[in-house]
Amino acid sequence: MAYLDRGSTTGYGRHADSEGDASWAELAKTGKSKSHRYQEHEAVYYEGDPADKVYEVVEGTVMLFKLLPDGRRQVVEVLRTGGLFGLTSKAHQDCNAETLTASVIRSIEKREIEGSTVMQQHIAKCMLTQLETLHDHAVLLGRKSAFERVASFLMRFVPERGIVGCIGPKPSGKDESLIVLAMTRQEIADYLGLTIETVSRVISDLKRRGLITIEKQDRIRITNVCGICHLTGTH
Amino acid sequence: MAYLDRGSTTGYGRHADSEGDASWAELAKTGKSKSHRYQEHEAVYYEGDPADKVYEVVEGTVMLFKLLPDGRRQVVEVLRTGGLFGLTSKAHQDCNAETLTASVIRSIEKREIEGSTVMQQHIAKCMLTQLETLHDHAVLLGRKSAFERVASFLMRFVPERGIVGCIGPKPSGKDESLIVLAMTRQEIADYLGLTIETVSRVISDLKRRGLITIEKQDRIRITNVCGICHLTGTH
Repeated sequence: MAYLDRGSTTGYGRHADSEGDASWAELAKTGKSKSHRYQEHEAVYYEGDPADKVYEVVEGTVMLFKLLPDGRRQVVEVLRTGGLFGLTSKAHQDCNAETLTASVIRSIEKREIEGSTVMQQHIAKCMLTQLETLHDHAVLLGRKSAFERVASFLMRFVPERGIVGCIGPKPSGKDESLIVLAMTRQEIADYLGLTIETVSRVISDLKRRGLITIEKQDRIRITNVCGICHLTGTH
Repeated sequence: MAYLDRGSTTGYGRHADSEGDASWAELAKTGKSKSHRYQEHEAVYYEGDPADKVYEVVEGTVMLFKLLPDGRRQVVEVLRTGGLFGLTSKAHQDCNAETLTASVIRSIEKREIEGSTVMQQHIAKCMLTQLETLHDHAVLLGRKSAFERVASFLMRFVPERGIVGCIGPKPSGKDESLIVLAMTRQEIADYLGLTIETVSRVISDLKRRGLITIEKQDRIRITNVCGICHLTGTH
């Protein structure tokens, strides 16, 4: 695998590439990595905990968040299968990590990584994707309206749409996508830098406009993907 | 150098460590890295340009920014001496890079990095610090008030203050710090997710409260560092 590989498409959610997977699996065989099952909304670590391990989402979803002393919360990353976390240059974690859904998390001591070039390259590749996601998120938080933020958030769940080289709506005429958010309204608000009232108001409005239907609290059917995409502020 | 080294303190501005410096210098000797002098506000690359090089700020300051199609701009990173950029997993740059001041920028082809473990580890270390800075910036953009954003921005220029292990004011009684912003009000606004009017209003207000004095447009004397620090939202 070339270092800082060009042309890779990891997409939102940062899936581990096969070589990364292989190296984790190898380490698992030697007993160097450990897997642990977490309940929904269980803490993996807290800000300030010793930062001696790197974690990988094997299954499920994890959020990283930071708190201000008065309780304001900002979700800074949402990680899905293949996503890595616990990545800090400091001796202590810079964020809190908590599962959003029931998850399986693999962990490995940082000192074990020192001997594995493949692992180091895999981590570097994941960090590159995380930097890009955080750049995009800074644009969302710093410059987008509430509607644009919610529309951008919804579009991240629709594969191969709203990105460079978007394939457009299916020729069948129906331009739908069923998405599972795995986040409460409050978590979405804390990720998008909004209040829960604003998130609920925007979702109700998108529903009223016929762009989405709510199937369950965390299950939304986008009934007009192009319509939502046009609200993201990137058109 | 240990991979994902614990306990390192790179601070805001991401200074290259000595081993990173040494490896760049080595590559310079072999003619593999190239240095180029840029004027103030000169583009290094544009979003969408081929991403075949990694860049290092040798001298000066560089901003990375993204534009929305209607012209809204978000500055996503500000890099000082030792800061690396051009780091993306894709074939094309995800941001625009422009100098804020006259700068010297060193560049190296990504393929040259493949042969250097020291360089790869140096880049990984820089990316870790960048991830932490972007996490903090997400909190600033998503959850902080205008006053808190400007105060947090000013505090980033005061070494060893407002961080864990802050040394507090000098025993002399004067708690001052002269800072050179190297950014216009518009650039600060685009970094902090504010309008230029809001940035100017907050700076005027801080001046009226006796916390700062303006020596030149981009040169501010903080006359009460603890006072500004208490406005950052992290106390």
